[in-house]
Amino acid sequence: MHDFVFHNPTKIIFGRDTESRLGAELRQHGIENVLFVYGRDSIKKSGLHGRIVASLREAGIAFHEFGGVSSNPVLTHVRQGIDKAKMQGVDGVLAVGGGSVLDEGKAIAAGARTDNDIWYYFTGTEVRDALPVFTVPTLAATGSEMNGNSVVTNEETRQKFNISSPLIYPRLSILNPALTFTVPPDYTAYGAVDAIAHVIEGYFTQEAGAPLLDRLVENIITTVMNSHETIMKHPDHYEARAEFMWAATLALNGLTTAGTRNHSFPNHMIEHSLSALYNIPHGAGLSIVIPAWMKWYSARRPDRFWRFAYKVFGLADAEAGIKALERWFNSIKTPTRLRDVSIPERDIEKIADNCGDLAELWGLNHIYTREVLIDILRLAA
Amino acid sequence: MHDFVFHNPTKIIFGRDTESRLGAELRQHGIENVLFVYGRDSIKKSGLHGRIVASLREAGIAFHEFGGVSSNPVLTHVRQGIDKAKMQGVDGVLAVGGGSVLDEGKAIAAGARTDNDIWYYFTGTEVRDALPVFTVPTLAATGSEMNGNSVVTNEETRQKFNISSPLIYPRLSILNPALTFTVPPDYTAYGAVDAIAHVIEGYFTQEAGAPLLDRLVENIITTVMNSHETIMKHPDHYEARAEFMWAATLALNGLTTAGTRNHSFPNHMIEHSLSALYNIPHGAGLSIVIPAWMKWYSARRPDRFWRFAYKVFGLADAEAGIKALERWFNSIKTPTRLRDVSIPERDIEKIADNCGDLAELWGLNHIYTREVLIDILRLAA
Repeated sequence: MHDFVFHNPTKIIFGRDTESRLGAELRQHGIENVLFVYGRDSIKKSGLHGRIVASLREAGIAFHEFGGVSSNPVLTHVRQGIDKAKMQGVDGVLAVGGGSVLDEGKAIAAGARTDNDIWYYFTGTEVRDALPVFTVPTLAATGSEMNGNSVVTNEETRQKFNISSPLIYPRLSILNPALTFTVPPDYTAYGAVDAIAHVIEGYFTQEAGAPLLDRLVENIITTVMNSHETIMKHPDHYEARAEFMWAATLALNGLTTAGTRNHSFPNHMIEHSLSALYNIPHGAGLSIVIPAWMKWYSARRPDRFWRFAYKVFGLADAEAGIKALERWFNSIKTPTRLRDVSIPERDIEKIADNCGDLAELWGLNHIYTREVLIDILRLAA
Repeated sequence: MHDFVFHNPTKIIFGRDTESRLGAELRQHGIENVLFVYGRDSIKKSGLHGRIVASLREAGIAFHEFGGVSSNPVLTHVRQGIDKAKMQGVDGVLAVGGGSVLDEGKAIAAGARTDNDIWYYFTGTEVRDALPVFTVPTLAATGSEMNGNSVVTNEETRQKFNISSPLIYPRLSILNPALTFTVPPDYTAYGAVDAIAHVIEGYFTQEAGAPLLDRLVENIITTVMNSHETIMKHPDHYEARAEFMWAATLALNGLTTAGTRNHSFPNHMIEHSLSALYNIPHGAGLSIVIPAWMKWYSARRPDRFWRFAYKVFGLADAEAGIKALERWFNSIKTPTRLRDVSIPERDIEKIADNCGDLAELWGLNHIYTREVLIDILRLAA
């Protein structure tokens, strides 16, 4: 095991109806006035918005609503949120929704405590201060509810970049698996792909690790796959939604990479270009990139791919493991080829060009050169 | 999965030579004056004491030494530590040593912030305040470095009781697996038993759980067993010591029971009487109690025991799984019978009587009546 620092201070309250405790919890955290960030009207239709408002009012917490966060949250909207947070003098940010809402909430929290434009943070400057963040996720996928990451797209420059800071770990996240009953099948499947992607990136790219961590990753993948199969048949199966949700949280809360060395996120890197350029859902982009990347990468780490095939699918053949994962993506109806989301093969060079900036920012440009990116993307054609 | 709250704010710094960062870290946590708690002279002989002192001095942190913590820490010594902490006006407690030292450090931290006698907390009063706790474990076993538990023995009343409070989670624990190279084979084996005990208590007694959590427990057991086998042959095998250490921490940091319902710790309960009465090492007591308890309990949860046998030992037979664990305890030379530690069979009733108080305090007296305790202990005769 490689040296590591693990510090995840997020408090998780997990279970049915737990959102009713939100107001009292915020009060305990010393919050009096929050920016209430959400997405489209779905949380109003589902009644969640009303329950959140009731809980805040009951605890005497003032709030200012800021809706309209889009899937793949965009910088202009983040800036509007920061303006509103500053204008209203809020002392915290409450994000209620999917991973995009949580990520935008975190970006607003950081932006509200700086006089610089928030995009400086996304292009390499370390976050220096942030308002406390609280979340109520309505989708199991990104793990944003228990980590310090936020991903935002700059529409102008077509860059989908991220910040990572201990300051934007949520102080509290309230996870009620029943809130995810109404997530439609396609977005549930994208969430499954995202959670699996979060653990396999490190699993395959790490230089040092340990059997303990390998088994933890395999456990999370197996949990996501098994629970997703139950959810496909019974969307309101509480147990399956609960396991799926907690597995997605554990997939990116720091545990699976604590002790690994030089893990990287090449699939996320390439996918960020797909959703920056074509605004496709993150999970859909990942299920296109992953099999292609695996085919390109597997010869470099045959031992890891053999283990993956054996432990996850019971197959004693590295190639067969990749095919099995691709078949599983097909079975849950997520795309596995660029054409499945109407991206023409002639765009591959443009995608590779877009990816160059992030490859440089993440220090992966020595491996993922323009030529390599084109090779990988051709395998997805 | 059952509803749960998970909140573990302890920061872990893990790796070689990490104790050199202690002083700077304490400074960052705002500490200026600590009580430095340790056990016998072994940390002086190993050079660790000198390195800790150097790191504290370099960071300009005043410290007051309080050594002499015994295995199975005792109340009179805890009270002396509290007096010293109050007299010196320390603003934090630094515990360097095995689980006993960490537990005593936590008890001192709580006791230093109350005018009542510390034993009130151990007999059911909730901890209201505590000094911040920092730890450098030198033994992998108890998980005390990442949880809010402390176990102390009242020599006068012969009661080995515990406190559990969010206030005594260490703010920071520095884990250097190389510090455990010199742990002798018997105490390394006791540590393995303790870590395994921490996860199997919940695994077998829970009413609700999830495959995700079952696999996490099985992963920890497998890790402890495999790494211990390497350590027996190569005591200074860094990788094995590292996996063993992190697995022992994860075994009791709240993760394995988050989502379970009505888990209990009957083996720990019975063992506390053995070490309270005979001052045997905790792990030695556990390896005596566990096989006996399993034989008594297995008919109540045949499904769990079948799963345990299959997943941990590859055996398709619940009974055989219990025997395999007992054989494994024998192979690592931990006792599995009362006579192995010279406890005579005629003491069984006395042990059961001693256990009654804790059974009542933990709300287990309706299951673990005097008669049941005698039955279980007879299976260990």
